[in-house]
This record gives sequence, C-alpha cells and structure tokens, in this order.
Amino acid sequence: MTTIHAWAATEKGGPLQRFDFDSGPLGEEEVAIRVEHCGICHSDLAMIDSEWFPSTYPVVPGHEVIGVITEVGARVKGRQVGQRVGIGWHTGSCMHCGFCLGGEQHLCGQRQPTIIGRHGGFADRLHAHWAWAVPIPDNLDPAAAGPLMCGGGTVFLPFVLHSIKPTDRVGVVGIGGLGHLAVKFARAWGCEVTAFTSSPSKREEALALGAHKTLSSVDTSELKAAAGSLDFLQVTVGASLNWDALIGTLAAKGRFHLVGVVTDKLQLKSGGLLSWQRSVSASPTPPPTTLARMLEFAARHQILPQVERFPMSRVNEALDHLRANKARYRIVLDAETDGAAAS
Amino acid sequence: MTTIHAWAATEKGGPLQRFDFDSGPLGEEEVAIRVEHCGICHSDLAMIDSEWFPSTYPVVPGHEVIGVITEVGARVKGRQVGQRVGIGWHTGSCMHCGFCLGGEQHLCGQRQPTIIGRHGGFADRLHAHWAWAVPIPDNLDPAAAGPLMCGGGTVFLPFVLHSIKPTDRVGVVGIGGLGHLAVKFARAWGCEVTAFTSSPSKREEALALGAHKTLSSVDTSELKAAAGSLDFLQVTVGASLNWDALIGTLAAKGRFHLVGVVTDKLQLKSGGLLSWQRSVSASPTPPPTTLARMLEFAARHQILPQVERFPMSRVNEALDHLRANKARYRIVLDAETDGAAAS
Repeated sequence: MTTIHAWAATEKGGPLQRFDFDSGPLGEEEVAIRVEHCGICHSDLAMIDSEWFPSTYPVVPGHEVIGVITEVGARVKGRQVGQRVGIGWHTGSCMHCGFCLGGEQHLCGQRQPTIIGRHGGFADRLHAHWAWAVPIPDNLDPAAAGPLMCGGGTVFLPFVLHSIKPTDRVGVVGIGGLGHLAVKFARAWGCEVTAFTSSPSKREEALALGAHKTLSSVDTSELKAAAGSLDFLQVTVGASLNWDALIGTLAAKGRFHLVGVVTDKLQLKSGGLLSWQRSVSASPTPPPTTLARMLEFAARHQILPQVERFPMSRVNEALDHLRANKARYRIVLDAETDGAAAS
Repeated sequence: MTTIHAWAATEKGGPLQRFDFDSGPLGEEEVAIRVEHCGICHSDLAMIDSEWFPSTYPVVPGHEVIGVITEVGARVKGRQVGQRVGIGWHTGSCMHCGFCLGGEQHLCGQRQPTIIGRHGGFADRLHAHWAWAVPIPDNLDPAAAGPLMCGGGTVFLPFVLHSIKPTDRVGVVGIGGLGHLAVKFARAWGCEVTAFTSSPSKREEALALGAHKTLSSVDTSELKAAAGSLDFLQVTVGASLNWDALIGTLAAKGRFHLVGVVTDKLQLKSGGLLSWQRSVSASPTPPPTTLARMLEFAARHQILPQVERFPMSRVNEALDHLRANKARYRIVLDAETDGAAAS
C-alpha cells in the first residue's frame, strides 16, 4: 500500500485539487508506475465535466502516461522494474475472453478505462495490468510521447484496421490534438494527405505538419470542388459538420471513419453511401499490440505530437488553456521532483 | 431498327399504357433480347412515381429481365443468338475506366441504369451491352429467375464485399422482395440467420424461408434482449426504423449494411459505432462477374425467389398488388405469345 498523490475534480466542471488516496495492494498481474509525464486529452475534460454520463467524483484524469516501472506483481510477465512504459485509455482487460485471447483486448467486455471507475495519471503513481503497460522505444522522447498513448493510438488504429495503403488519398478532418497526429501518421504512411479545418490559421500549420493540401471543413463550395477525390476520411472532431458534404469528397468505395465521439446524432443520406459503395466506420483506442506497433512506427519516423508542457502543479492553468482551444496541439504535464502533488 | 412494344407510365404515378417506340440501331457491342419474363422491383415504382428525382416520361419500367438473345452487334464477345441471359439494374458501362477495367463496372461513372434515360424490360425487346447480359444457368428456372438479376444480386453482393463467413451470425431486416432472398442466401452460405420483421405474420414465413429465428424489427425490448448477438445486419427496408436499437444487436466489429435507399436521413449515435468498432456500409447492385457468381451459387442451392406471376398485359393489376404490399414476395410478368403489348 502506498499513498498516491494526485489531482482530482471533486465536482462537475470543478477545478482540480490535491487529492491523496491509498493505492490499495498491487495486483499479482499489475505493475506500479512512477508517472513522469501525462498528456491531457479531451476525454479528460469529458470526465471532469460529466459530458458523456454522470461521472463519479473525485475524478483523477490522465490517461496518456509515460513513466517507469517501480514494482511488479508476482505474476507479471515481460516487464521489469526500471522499464519505461506508456499507459493509454485502458489499464486492463479480462485477458481470457475471445477478444483478449484473439489480440483485440480493446473490445473486451471487461476492459478497464484508466479514468473511469478508477484514478488516472494526474498523479505520482499508477497501477496497470502488465499487458497494457507498453514499453516505450529508447529513441522516442519520453517527454513528448505521452499523447501517443491515447491520441496517437486512436488515429493509428484505423490505418491498420482498414488496411490503408500508401497509394491511398487520405483526408483528416479537424486539426487538433488527434488530427495533427493523424496528418503526421498519414504522411509517414506514404499517403497523399489532405487536411480539413474550419480555422484558416491552421491551414498553413497543417502543411507544415505534413499535409499536401488543405480544404475548409465548412465551406460547402470547397467541399463540392473536391467531390470524389479521397479514399479515406479520418474524422477527429466532436461537433457536427455537414457530413453528407464531407462524404461527397470520397471516391467510390471510400470510407468515412470516426475516431471521436460526436455529441449530436450523425445525420446521413443513405443514397450517398449506397450509390458509390461507401462506408461509415468508427474505432476506439487500440489493443496493446497495436500500441506497440504504433510506437515502433512513430520511433522510426520520429512522429511525436507538437506539445506544450506544464508542471503538474499548474494543471488547472493547462486545463484552462485546453478549454480555451488554445493548445497547439497537445498539452503534457510533467511530474515534479517532490511528487505530482507539488504546489 | 425494330418497333418495340412496351408498357409505359406517361405521368407521375400514372397507370401503365401501351407504348410503341423505335428500338434505334443495335450498338456494335450490344445484344438484342426477346423478353420472356420481367420481375417488378420497388425501384420500378420509384421511377413511375418520381420518388427519387423527377422522372422523364414516358417511363418504361422493368430491370429484372430474363430473355433470349435474338441478335448480336458486330463487336459482341462471348454471347450468341439463342442464348438465355438476364439483365438487372444496369445495361451498360463505359468498359474503359478504372472501375470497368478493374471488374467493378457497377461503380463506373457512366454506368447506364436499365430504366433511367432509356426504356426497360416491360417490353418485348431490350438492348444491352453484351457484358451486362449475363448467361442464365440451364438448371435455374427462367420463369422465376428474373428477380435474381436485381434483388438477388443486390442482397448477394454484400456477402462477397464483406467476406461474410459461414460462421457468422447474420440478421436480415425486412422480409420482402429483397429480404426473403437475403434469408435464403444467408442460409445457403452456412450462416446462422435471424429474420427481423415488423409483421407478425411474416415471422413464421421467414422460418420456412430458412431463418433460424426471428425478431421484431420494431419492438425495442426484443431488440434489447438480442444485444450484441450478431455479426452482420443486412437492412433491406426503405423506411426509417430505430437504427441505434438495431445496431445494438451487433457484436463488436459488427456491420450494419444497407442495400436499399432509405428515404429519410439516417440518424445514428456515433458512440455505439465507436465503442465497439462497428461499421455502417451500403452497396448498390453488383457488377456482371458477381451476378454470374450469384447465379451459379443460386443454381447450386436452387435459390429462387418466391414469385407470383401475371401476364404482362395485366401489369397494372400487378403494380397495384405490389403497392398494396400484398406481394409474397416478388412479382414476375410473363411475356405473351403475341408480344409484350398484348392486351
């Protein structure tokens, strides 16, 4: 048992406050991790704000963790004390259902989100099942790698699931925390990359990130002019857009793929899908093997998020920055020498 | 040049009347077909009624044609006079674009629907590009095979496109002209088949068609009880249902696939797709090679629609029967000895 020093929201939308709690015993298949860095994701805000469902408070956010293993349970396999690992949206799954045995642990009915029903990485210590603590390659900057564990994995999985080919024409809708990583992955994947954004200022930035061209995500005439030109659209936004117009930019057999929860119901004309044999799909965060594959690919191509860093004690300032939509493009909190809870 | 004796709607929703027109010269790559039988599909009503867009009248419906080749153009390949062939939704495509060369002629930008911008199979003669005149296997009853050319091909294509496996649990939503064929194909494919219908009387019939079980397509509690139990849902209806509840019957990675145009916009929650990595897709009628493969499979398993037959001169009675939703399950018009226009 160890006292974990964390930051928690104690009420809906509230500021984070210091929060100490007992870690409980380390599970036999778990590793304990000393948190070094933790990214901030929009899902953290969703939990703080009870956006998806009523959260149970206190909420300790944080699920883009980079840290070092300090302790291993008696039945841990393949992980050692001192090893640097990353934790994303999940810290565990049952490890015995068909999905877990089949390598799709992210679809396990018992999958355990890092910040739902348990406390996350805005803390000095975190426990996780060893399989979900994914080793970080040596040549990947640990101070920036945190957002790869959720955001990076989320935008990488569709490339694997749908066998995206380097010859494909890929569009990324929304250039933010997820979208800017999707642009980098698509570029390294060898694809022709089109960035869709509603923000004129981001069009230049998207080109610098690796996009070959940009389109307005809201200007119907621009979308119309691009009709039928793409094979795959990765949609990273949470607010509704003119989906039919975006789907219209897909060629026959094109795929419109969501990687984030869109708050409103999707409204789509079936004819645009049917006539040209198009699909709509969606995926959550990936299983451990895909996270490992993603990290290997990211290391080879030096794909890292563009981050702004805050010491963990300034977490509320960091959250305000994200809420103000000012993050370019992802925020990482750094642990401090006297523990995460320093102030 | 030949005079074609046909039946045409001359105004929106109007009854069909005798209509004679000049066939024009037979194209060098075309075959001329003496129509023996022609199925009636909901798309014929859509064209008569200007349902999808304003139709250009006269409309000669009919795109589930079985007939015999009576003449071949100078550059026709692989088709002979006397051969029995079927024609479905398309009578032609450009044959030189990437889709045509790639075997996906149904996605050609120049694809020619049989009853849009030209006259269809409620007639004694029809011209079509040889590639789209698909030979009918000898052991398939020509008097019943017509509906395979559009309805059958439409429900068969998704099995091929999405590599449906005999181990899959397949649901068919809507047991009508398309749905009853989908149940038969799914059963012959080796799948576990669940028929969804809003009509209590059709539940027993669906079991007789080959379904292993049935569910109400509109009773939310029945749908809820079946949550997560299917791999593939083929949706054959045109009216809106509770799509989220239907998608909820899919297991993780499940696919919701439309084969008909749904008049209203689809309204879908993204969360149900994202959390369990589900997809929504749609497909039109298939290319000639898939039609041929479908006919071969149908012949091997003796899959034929359950039809009601009318002489072509009683076409208006047949259309009324279909409009009254009384067809069980597909209507076929038979040519008469003195030509289609006999009355």
